[in-house]
Parts: sequence; structure tokens; C-alpha cells
Amino acid sequence: MARWEPNAQGRLAEAALELFAERGYEQTTVADIAERAGLTKRTFFRYYADKREVLFGAGTEFQDLIVEGATGAAPDAAPLDVVAAGLRAGVDMLEGRRAFARRRASVISANPELQERELIKMASVAKALAQVLRDRGIAEPEASLTAEAGVAAFRIAFERWAQGEDLRDLPELTRASLAALRALSSAA
Amino acid sequence: MARWEPNAQGRLAEAALELFAERGYEQTTVADIAERAGLTKRTFFRYYADKREVLFGAGTEFQDLIVEGATGAAPDAAPLDVVAAGLRAGVDMLEGRRAFARRRASVISANPELQERELIKMASVAKALAQVLRDRGIAEPEASLTAEAGVAAFRIAFERWAQGEDLRDLPELTRASLAALRALSSAA
Repeated sequence: MARWEPNAQGRLAEAALELFAERGYEQTTVADIAERAGLTKRTFFRYYADKREVLFGAGTEFQDLIVEGATGAAPDAAPLDVVAAGLRAGVDMLEGRRAFARRRASVISANPELQERELIKMASVAKALAQVLRDRGIAEPEASLTAEAGVAAFRIAFERWAQGEDLRDLPELTRASLAALRALSSAA
Repeated sequence: MARWEPNAQGRLAEAALELFAERGYEQTTVADIAERAGLTKRTFFRYYADKREVLFGAGTEFQDLIVEGATGAAPDAAPLDVVAAGLRAGVDMLEGRRAFARRRASVISANPELQERELIKMASVAKALAQVLRDRGIAEPEASLTAEAGVAAFRIAFERWAQGEDLRDLPELTRASLAALRALSSAA
């Protein structure tokens, strides 16, 4: 019978991030992670399907929060404001796990395969946001365009935040990035 | 010694697209493609490293044309106009191979793994365009934001064109998509 381990999931996530940063993602095995956390591989697999899930397991929750935030925007909100409301909800989640999110981002930025996975995850968020806009009666291509451009603005803010290129917090950087998007037409 | 085969590369590409459409991409082997083209596997590998390269081999040329088009924009062009000039060059290449590009797109849209590959390719185009803008003195995050949003506008136009949802040609659809991007700020 499995022994109950206090905060096993948190300890595994912490151990994984430490090892990914020390040795690189590829060079870290599930056995290494379990050992560092003082737990068994079996316990690891009770929480995660594989080591990638330590980094991407919260993706569904992130997307759901964004969709929920966008869905709850005022009925007369402009399309980009609907997208911004959704992104705000996602950003709040990341700020609430700031230390984890930042270290996670630096592991991802060191590995092209993980960057691709992140890109695909964000494409899925954009598709979900476009659906929210269509459900509000916004036609294509405006719905997809607004969603994709808004998500691009978020991604750029997130990269700057993760790489520490900019000292502002993520909500502030996301607002600035969305403002730059809104300014595109006046600049052109 | 290899026998010279007239237009071997074109025949292989044609055979590959036929088979991908008939059987699906996963179910088609290099041997199938060579057989359909009336050529040997050995001839196939003289032109392509694998079957995926039939679809993605022109990616570098596409990106180079876009970078060249953007680099050649007027020195005082606004950032989004620089991106638009680059995209125009890429779109012209696709229109010049319209039948191939359209069938290729429909194979890709039927396969999530190929869609991911296409997404990653377009992310690389956006990064290259952001570099062109930085070389012109545009600061971050404006450079990345303009490039990413412009490429998103192109992707949306391209999907509509490939899926035949819209009967306009690709240059026209791309112009309309970029115009919708420019209109985002006024709509918000």
C-alpha cells in the first residue's frame, strides 16, 4: 500500500524544476526527480504521466480560466477587450504562481522542443478565444484575428517577463503589449 | 549509375500529394510515392530527406523571400507596412504555385502533427521579420508584436484560402486580413 506523503506533488514539481535547471530537461529522468524529492517513481506516476506533464499539466486549467474570463466580459465589450479580459484571468493565475511560472519558463526557453509544445498550447488558447468571440456574434476572420493577435501580445509580454528583460510584472507587461497592439493601426 | 528521369522531383511531389490525399499522410510510405511516380526510392532520396520534406522543403525559400521583401520596404515605411511588404513576397510565391500550395494545405489541415510543423515554421518567419524590424531601429516589444500580429493575419488569410471558405485570391485575403488587424485598435 502506498504511504501518504505530505505535499508529494509540490515536492516533485520543485525537484523537477531544480533538476531541469541544473542538468537540462533532456538529461533528467523521472527516477532522478523522484530521488531528489525523496519519493518513489511510483509516487511520481500517481501525479504525472511523464516529466513533461510537470511543465504542461496546468495548461488545461490556464486555458479554461482564459475562456471563462473572456466569456464573462461585458456583453457590449469590443472583441479585443473580450480577449484582454480572458488573458487577464490567465495572467492572474501565473502571477499567483510566480516563482514556479518563471522557473518553468526558463526551462522551456532553453529547449526548442518544449518551446514548440508551448507554442502549440498557445495556439489552442487562441482557437478557444476565437470560439468565444464567434459565440458572441463576431464574424470571421475578425474573431480569429483578434484572438491570435491578442495571444501574440500576451506571448511577447510573457517572454519578456520570463527572461527578466523587463522588470514590470506580468499584468503590467501584458497591458503594455495589448496597448502596443491597439497602436499598430495608428502607427501604420 | 542513376538514369536521368525527366522532372523527377515534380513527379514525386505530385505522386506524394495524390497519395497523401487518397490514403492520408501517415499511411503513405516513400516506397508508395516512388512507385506511383514510376521512380525508385533511391531517386526519391536524391530529392527529399523524407516524405515530410515534400511538404516543408520550400519553407526556407518562403521565409527568405519574406525577409527579402521586408528588407526592401521603403526606409520610412511604418513597421506593419514593412511586415506587409514581406508577406506580399511570400504570398506571391504561393500564388505562383497555387495548385500545389492549396493541395498541400489541405493535406496539412487533415493532420495535427503537420499543423504543428506549419505553426512552428510560421513562428520562425515571425522571428525573422522581428529581426528585420529591429535592424531598422524598431524597439522591442513593438518589433516582435508587429511581426507576430502580421504573421497571424497572414495565417488566418491562408487558412481561409486553403479551405476554400472564401473565394478571393490569397493576396486579396491577406490584404483584407491585414486591414482587419489595422482596424483592431479603432474597434476597441
